[in-house]
Amino acid sequence: MKNPITSLFDIKYPIIQAGMVWCSGWRLASAVSNAGGLGIIGAGSMYPDTLREHIRKCRQATNRPFAVNVPLLYPNVQEIMDILVEEEVGIVFTSAGNPATWTGFLKQKEVKVVHVIANTKFALKAQYSGVDAIVAEGFEAGGHNGREETTTMCLIPMIRAAVDIPVIAAGGIASGKAMLAAFALGADAVQIGSAFAVAEESSAHPNFKERIITSAEGDTKLSMKKLVPVRLLKNEFANAVAQAEANGASTADLAALLGRARAKLGMFEGDMTEGELEIGQVSAMLNEIKPAATILQEIWDGFLLERDRVLGYTF
Amino acid sequence: MKNPITSLFDIKYPIIQAGMVWCSGWRLASAVSNAGGLGIIGAGSMYPDTLREHIRKCRQATNRPFAVNVPLLYPNVQEIMDILVEEEVGIVFTSAGNPATWTGFLKQKEVKVVHVIANTKFALKAQYSGVDAIVAEGFEAGGHNGREETTTMCLIPMIRAAVDIPVIAAGGIASGKAMLAAFALGADAVQIGSAFAVAEESSAHPNFKERIITSAEGDTKLSMKKLVPVRLLKNEFANAVAQAEANGASTADLAALLGRARAKLGMFEGDMTEGELEIGQVSAMLNEIKPAATILQEIWDGFLLERDRVLGYTF
Repeated sequence: MKNPITSLFDIKYPIIQAGMVWCSGWRLASAVSNAGGLGIIGAGSMYPDTLREHIRKCRQATNRPFAVNVPLLYPNVQEIMDILVEEEVGIVFTSAGNPATWTGFLKQKEVKVVHVIANTKFALKAQYSGVDAIVAEGFEAGGHNGREETTTMCLIPMIRAAVDIPVIAAGGIASGKAMLAAFALGADAVQIGSAFAVAEESSAHPNFKERIITSAEGDTKLSMKKLVPVRLLKNEFANAVAQAEANGASTADLAALLGRARAKLGMFEGDMTEGELEIGQVSAMLNEIKPAATILQEIWDGFLLERDRVLGYTF
Repeated sequence: MKNPITSLFDIKYPIIQAGMVWCSGWRLASAVSNAGGLGIIGAGSMYPDTLREHIRKCRQATNRPFAVNVPLLYPNVQEIMDILVEEEVGIVFTSAGNPATWTGFLKQKEVKVVHVIANTKFALKAQYSGVDAIVAEGFEAGGHNGREETTTMCLIPMIRAAVDIPVIAAGGIASGKAMLAAFALGADAVQIGSAFAVAEESSAHPNFKERIITSAEGDTKLSMKKLVPVRLLKNEFANAVAQAEANGASTADLAALLGRARAKLGMFEGDMTEGELEIGQVSAMLNEIKPAATILQEIWDGFLLERDRVLGYTF
């Protein structure tokens, strides 16, 4: 399939695996890239040296393009960026910060840059900063979300109308049906998190994967809106946050409740009670742990099948 | 276009205008039905005698099928149902209540019944009650919403997988792009509210229509989650609710703040400061007041155009 995103990244399918803290190391990223999508190493949960190691291992495991996602809210971004350049990473996804800060630096080094946004204002800012494409992420997505709470259904047509660069849709996409819907809305590709978080190659703790595939409708909730909005699986920690919010907790109260390393505790160390479990709303539809290549192929086959179905109507 | 919904209702296009308080009287419903969709009179804001008058006027204004929407949370439902039967209304949409309560009564009178749901549990309950179809309404929709906050993108494939009856998608749909996306997700038709709330034939106050078409991204918010969740345009009233919620307001506090007739004050009488302004997230993309027939035709033409575009990819 030739389109602006497959051409930009030189990949076979317009399917991108989201960079996710504690889930997407070199194993997952290389598996997705080998299967014809774009795998992404999530730098957000890695010390600089760990990231370097993952990049090197990923390159050994695949000769296809892969990327690194860098959340710009972390303090050691300069060090991370230097590593990306030294290790000759060709594609970088930036998120959770100002796209103007690092895009110029990366583009000078001939790196392809994609920025993650959740509203038109930042989409335009990213385009102006010179990024090659944007990820537009809806309210239903896991991890950190926009404050406007705009859903994928509403966000993608707005962003498509606002910018001239390729748009990658994210949030609520884990099937061929949803991928086709994203294309209908105007996307050139999809970024998929939750479905790959439960891949065999994901570094998420087995307890977390099990919790995701057994979760049901209404089991996730956008939490900590006063702090940094994040979609969480409900557990004792998330319920404590909800209770605190219902009682009018302040930003400082929420920060204290969150503490440190909660995401690692839940997603990597497997504490399903007190850990922070970031996942998308679409987790309710996931019910099996499979190899990343199978996940990707099923989504792609579903996309083609659903396209034929929607075409099947006669007029 | 022949499909389960156009056949069920004997309509030309699988496009249904949502029954909306203070917006959808006989003028809007008959305009949509005359244009080939299914118009719906919203009984929620009408006294029984007023409803009877609207049904009669609608029948004079169109010889095409139309429906009435009845929110089951109101006290005088028995009286409303008797009127629907006396006036020989052939299609009834029920919402905000238990589908088991009235479906049997209506089906006995050979009325086609559709129930509005926001989760799988109620979709199955509606199917079991014998309804002919369901409307599955996502988080982004205006008016009253489900507590799970499941978005259209996540909800439609789940509901499609759960039931055997036709599914009508609602929430975030105001364009051909979004309609095609709904079909990709598995819907057989779309129900559209916000776009028809600003139709020339809508009985919404001109101030409210103007406020909708000038609204921007992030201007609506799901409010009063402790009471009955409802999506509102931000104004002084909505901000007061948000402030109260952030301070831990109880259900009783919210009910007191809401008071009586706030929706009428805003949507029908045009008080943009203190009125309750129910509208969908997609209002950010609306920017013109047009005849209902034009709105419907543009969505349908867009649907066909986008279908060809998504087909245009070569493999």
